[in-house]
Amino acid sequence: MDGNQQGAESSTAEVYLRNTWYQAAWSYELGEKPLARTILGVPLLLFRSEGRPSAIFDRCPHRFAPLSAGKLENGVIECGYHGLAFDGSGRCVRNPHGPITSAMRTPAFPVVERYHGIWIWFGDADAADIDLLPDLSYIDDIPESARILMYMPTAANYRLLTDNIMDLSHADFLHPTTLGGVIADSKFRQYDRGNGLVAEWVNLDCLAPGVWQGKIPHPAKIDYYIDVEWQAPAVMTLSNTVVPTGNQITTADCYKSLHNMTPETDKSTHYFACTARPDHFPDDSSKMKELLEQAFLREDKPMVEAQQRRIGDADFWSLRPILLNIDTAGVKARRRLDRLIAEERATSAA
Amino acid sequence: MDGNQQGAESSTAEVYLRNTWYQAAWSYELGEKPLARTILGVPLLLFRSEGRPSAIFDRCPHRFAPLSAGKLENGVIECGYHGLAFDGSGRCVRNPHGPITSAMRTPAFPVVERYHGIWIWFGDADAADIDLLPDLSYIDDIPESARILMYMPTAANYRLLTDNIMDLSHADFLHPTTLGGVIADSKFRQYDRGNGLVAEWVNLDCLAPGVWQGKIPHPAKIDYYIDVEWQAPAVMTLSNTVVPTGNQITTADCYKSLHNMTPETDKSTHYFACTARPDHFPDDSSKMKELLEQAFLREDKPMVEAQQRRIGDADFWSLRPILLNIDTAGVKARRRLDRLIAEERATSAA
Amino acid sequence: MDGNQQGAESSTAEVYLRNTWYQAAWSYELGEKPLARTILGVPLLLFRSEGRPSAIFDRCPHRFAPLSAGKLENGVIECGYHGLAFDGSGRCVRNPHGPITSAMRTPAFPVVERYHGIWIWFGDADAADIDLLPDLSYIDDIPESARILMYMPTAANYRLLTDNIMDLSHADFLHPTTLGGVIADSKFRQYDRGNGLVAEWVNLDCLAPGVWQGKIPHPAKIDYYIDVEWQAPAVMTLSNTVVPTGNQITTADCYKSLHNMTPETDKSTHYFACTARPDHFPDDSSKMKELLEQAFLREDKPMVEAQQRRIGDADFWSLRPILLNIDTAGVKARRRLDRLIAEERATSAA
Repeated sequence: MDGNQQGAESSTAEVYLRNTWYQAAWSYELGEKPLARTILGVPLLLFRSEGRPSAIFDRCPHRFAPLSAGKLENGVIECGYHGLAFDGSGRCVRNPHGPITSAMRTPAFPVVERYHGIWIWFGDADAADIDLLPDLSYIDDIPESARILMYMPTAANYRLLTDNIMDLSHADFLHPTTLGGVIADSKFRQYDRGNGLVAEWVNLDCLAPGVWQGKIPHPAKIDYYIDVEWQAPAVMTLSNTVVPTGNQITTADCYKSLHNMTPETDKSTHYFACTARPDHFPDDSSKMKELLEQAFLREDKPMVEAQQRRIGDADFWSLRPILLNIDTAGVKARRRLDRLIAEERATSAA
Repeated sequence: MDGNQQGAESSTAEVYLRNTWYQAAWSYELGEKPLARTILGVPLLLFRSEGRPSAIFDRCPHRFAPLSAGKLENGVIECGYHGLAFDGSGRCVRNPHGPITSAMRTPAFPVVERYHGIWIWFGDADAADIDLLPDLSYIDDIPESARILMYMPTAANYRLLTDNIMDLSHADFLHPTTLGGVIADSKFRQYDRGNGLVAEWVNLDCLAPGVWQGKIPHPAKIDYYIDVEWQAPAVMTLSNTVVPTGNQITTADCYKSLHNMTPETDKSTHYFACTARPDHFPDDSSKMKELLEQAFLREDKPMVEAQQRRIGDADFWSLRPILLNIDTAGVKARRRLDRLIAEERATSAA
Repeated sequence: MDGNQQGAESSTAEVYLRNTWYQAAWSYELGEKPLARTILGVPLLLFRSEGRPSAIFDRCPHRFAPLSAGKLENGVIECGYHGLAFDGSGRCVRNPHGPITSAMRTPAFPVVERYHGIWIWFGDADAADIDLLPDLSYIDDIPESARILMYMPTAANYRLLTDNIMDLSHADFLHPTTLGGVIADSKFRQYDRGNGLVAEWVNLDCLAPGVWQGKIPHPAKIDYYIDVEWQAPAVMTLSNTVVPTGNQITTADCYKSLHNMTPETDKSTHYFACTARPDHFPDDSSKMKELLEQAFLREDKPMVEAQQRRIGDADFWSLRPILLNIDTAGVKARRRLDRLIAEERATSAA
């Protein structure tokens, strides 16, 4: 064991899947003011023109001032330094100092708005097909009064946050007073669903986790079904079904939530989550908020950020992680994503 | 457009012109206490001996403690760690532990005091000719009650700050309420003057900028003449003449101001400015100060620092900036300086 | 003198002596709660099991969460992320998710507790002989009421702190009001004692330093004897004898103190000190504390940290320090340590 030897662990520059949609923001984050946000290491300016969202490289091609230091008027961003103005396609539409030439442009990225979110595409623009978006229509189906949208910037690589969701066994240890206690002795399965990967836990006749205590009749024994479906690059949908033990299950008993990880840089992530407030939390939004903050902000975030600091610049695999059965789904997701990235690079090199 | 591709932009270690005078401070900054300041990446200690300024490398040659952590007495700096003392020539003048040897010295730099400033020379000491100072005697000619000396440390390369002054068109966009509004439709000329470069804007019968509003009779139509003379490495003198439209111009109508950029590091600059309070601001120094702070501190500084952050470690030209006519003078200054640096390096290599 | 030329100074990755004991903590620092501390660049978790101290690598081998984010129960550290638990030998003793395999371990390091301190060994575990500890039994001999243990983290390489103690002449300049004033005109000797190096200063019939003023009869003339014994890697014992001039010396007049430097990283050090409150400070602990804080915290620490900042990443010798006679002992200690490290590396490479 050697401080110096640790330096020998290999480090890799992050390579991202590009021909895919990344969530850039929740719709509510992008109002009348532009939003400056770095995604996949690229500083972007998101803004709306007649309601329609755009994303352009946040750097004026003239002297490289950030366009986010300028102003938005009539769907056009005017650079705050010398007044060149750009529309959502990145083209210069106003040059106060002379003619507009074709070189006067800043890169623009395909953007769509769906599922209450703004989505961006970094790959080949011609391939930016809206049908390639994952089906998250359940978000739209949640009544607005029950829909909780969260944004949590996290100082960790997005794959560590994928691991966190694909292995819910962590809840028993990291979230013992709220969500934990039912995974350890549950029945686990992992299987494919289309292009996605599913991790599933079932625990019949178990004691309800802390968050359900007092919400269902004593002694609060439940049948607990949860599965997570992962889709590349890091879109995860949890389906959570909890009924008093032996009760018949209806579709109304199933709550879906989104955990979507968009890389900001190789060591930071935009964590987007959507949860539905269950019926038994009807008038209790402060309680629900407190619970989410406990689990997300005070438990998941510090742990995953500490994990990232310990990993530092090292490549994850070069540290030779121990593989447990609980890692099955997470490791499969990592490898599936690796393969997709490798295929994409092979194609673009061809 | 690729976050990774950005890494491919070339980055260069800053090379400075050395056989030239750089302003190290305003005279008022260097009182009885020494002044520690990094210039061209070199940590320096500036201090006075019998009033005469000196500049020595701020590191004791014994154990490398900063001499600025010591004390100045009778024109001699005593290291606070082991008591070796150095005079303004960098020679050790006291060794409490034994004899003084010729190795006991810290580098010293030629320094002169002129135009209310302290000037330093990093090149060949034999070539440090006071006559090579730019002629800034206009600073001495400003009545003391009207002379405003400013020092603004700025986290940006000094060439970005040169660009800022050599292209005053930015005033229309960055300083719209104070200085802007007259450049856009002015007549522009660029020409050489001796070793210097001049950028000139003339706008006859235009509306006075915000700063003049209320100072001259309604409707405040003016004839506006402004030119900037650049001298290497980054000394710029603005000559500003404003008269009510059609008035005869006298030399008294011309106000000169200095904008002088001394590199601290490759990403930070000591910005020295001297302006003259015009006659029509006679008893209104707080108003003048507010105006300068608005333009310098709250508009120029944040924009140029944001520009520097967007450029990061990349070489400016490797980012392929768009060239507009407004960049004529700034680009010429960049190239002139490049040529001077290249010539100096060729000479010293010969 | 050139900012760029400074970059040419060579920089070296720190290499440490490994087959030696490093002080990791004072015993009082390691109570019921674990202590996370980086030593020689290795993040460690120190904790007690049935009173006995252990030190393990502070990173879970599963997903690399810091074990210090977990909890200690019954002498076992449970990872806060997924519940794997490790004992003081680094072996996994509980895996809630399946069988325990031999790969489930985190490196552990030999640890002993002696002289009111916790000591750790980074070299070959078989060679971790308790008899290799330096003899610091004088610490145990200090009556508890007079024993003052200090811990001062310092942002400087440990060798700079060794230099500081091996050359006490700095006291005259850095601690003039408390400890200084007797070294300058003392008689200095340097000699070997076993494997150690001794620096000795004797000053007969001198004025007592500030700290003794008012403690001994006017005119406070004293005979002053002080020596420092250095043992690798950076364990230094000061023996301080002060008697009114001409008095007979007894062993009771000699006060010993420890100055022990454990590298945290190549630019930071855990500074452990033990001093004995002399008899003439009997009921005056606040005065003694104030004095130590003045010398350690407000004088030594800022100066050595400033020295480190000026040295930066450069190798100390590449800066060509001037060698004075006062550096004799410090330079010998540096070279002795260099030789020990070189021998160790030669042996391990053989």
